Amino acid sequence: MNFMQSLQQAWRGNASLVCIGLDPEPAKFPAPLRGRPDAVFEFCAALVDATADLVCAYKPQIAHFAALGAEDALARLIAHIHTRHPGVPVILDAKRGDIGSTAQHYAAEAFDRYGADAVTVNPYLGRDSLQPFLDRTDKGVIVLCRTSNAGGADFQALDCGGEPLYLRVARTVARDWNTHGNCALVVGATWPEELGKVRALVGDMPILVPGIGAQGGDVAAVLAHGRTADGTGLLVSSSRAILYAGSGADFADTARAAALALREDINHFRQTPV
Amino acid sequence: MNFMQSLQQAWRGNASLVCIGLDPEPAKFPAPLRGRPDAVFEFCAALVDATADLVCAYKPQIAHFAALGAEDALARLIAHIHTRHPGVPVILDAKRGDIGSTAQHYAAEAFDRYGADAVTVNPYLGRDSLQPFLDRTDKGVIVLCRTSNAGGADFQALDCGGEPLYLRVARTVARDWNTHGNCALVVGATWPEELGKVRALVGDMPILVPGIGAQGGDVAAVLAHGRTADGTGLLVSSSRAILYAGSGADFADTARAAALALREDINHFRQTPV
Repeated sequence: MNFMQSLQQAWRGNASLVCIGLDPEPAKFPAPLRGRPDAVFEFCAALVDATADLVCAYKPQIAHFAALGAEDALARLIAHIHTRHPGVPVILDAKRGDIGSTAQHYAAEAFDRYGADAVTVNPYLGRDSLQPFLDRTDKGVIVLCRTSNAGGADFQALDCGGEPLYLRVARTVARDWNTHGNCALVVGATWPEELGKVRALVGDMPILVPGIGAQGGDVAAVLAHGRTADGTGLLVSSSRAILYAGSGADFADTARAAALALREDINHFRQTPV
Repeated sequence: MNFMQSLQQAWRGNASLVCIGLDPEPAKFPAPLRGRPDAVFEFCAALVDATADLVCAYKPQIAHFAALGAEDALARLIAHIHTRHPGVPVILDAKRGDIGSTAQHYAAEAFDRYGADAVTVNPYLGRDSLQPFLDRTDKGVIVLCRTSNAGGADFQALDCGGEPLYLRVARTVARDWNTHGNCALVVGATWPEELGKVRALVGDMPILVPGIGAQGGDVAAVLAHGRTADGTGLLVSSSRAILYAGSGADFADTARAAALALREDINHFRQTPV
């Protein structure tokens, strides 16, 4: 089953558009895990085991592991998700982008070393820089379009011949890069109107939407502008608001409650049941 | 000594604008190293030890290490350069770019975990995404501007209000982001005229120029369009043409000869001696 099929199945099977971002920060870990040698893996795996029936995907953010030298924990975490919770796809949030020969090594890192089902990538270097990812027809290639941060407007909002750069990116991905049907886009929850413009351009292409919760994105607006006719099409990503919902021994239960609340909140605005 | 000071000193002390890209590919390693457990480190360290008086910087490309799970070799390699060849700066070629909280982890990866003196970054996510790098006043922040690959034109060449996106990036970096004087840019050797337009905008800001050699960039054109009045301002990067110049037991000597030839070729076109 390829990434797009897994995603479709998880959307429906778990009745969820929730994507949990796995951003381990040891300083925020619950007290019982602090100082344990394998705390990064234990924390993330406990979160996953408590929420795997509530999500459409997990999204480990590689910098959080790399800054700690915890590549091994990341590899074991992805293997754990695949083994214990088959069918739930894993997106490696890496935002890679480099020229062809190097891009092959980045694709090998994401897909072969870590076994991710999809990876986030940066479009600035153009199509040939992403070709080694696009060629992996079983994997998802999730291209940055309109990011959730304030600085996202610095270049993404520039007028490029009658449309802003981010719409040019969306149009290019949908029209030219998606020949294998394995592309998706990133649009921040903080820009719901832009999300609507992207949705109007790209049909049913999945859109990963970070920025709910800590960054202030609004669930109702995201769903209104971003969902497809069948009430899916989105991966609404939340990290800190779920991971660090609790800080005691019951942190996994507290995270589950937060994930459940987000799923219900989102489903309230999906309107069309699936 | 900060990155910019180290670079100035290496330009002058080694009379060189050559930056050697360290892109280890075990399949291309010389026969005596093949199959050795620490071949990645041994190969790169031998190259470094044979060329350290001929370069202005080394540029390890992180994907080549990450795809192999060789983070430890990368860390030891950078430490080796700093210990054995103090004063030669190390640029971690990582092309990172992510929103603020994650960017802090990427900055920690490059500067704290690996001890790099500079890092390449992607501008697509805007200023706040690079702020954690820009705040490290002792480190270099080398921003992608006009990349050497054919697909670089897909977005970088788009007209954004009267100038192409890559010039808008160059202008923004020079005018707004370089408050600590620690910024540089990447412009591919394959676009010498664009290099000249960037140079005209950014004064003496250093420009990292990949694409000489395997990618077909021309040394004379790069120097004519890119050098500063004092005959510096450039880091002319070459990887494969030096690393894999030889494949026998004398590979380090062969690489040294290739680096020496490139240095002389470049210096022939510097015109103004330093």
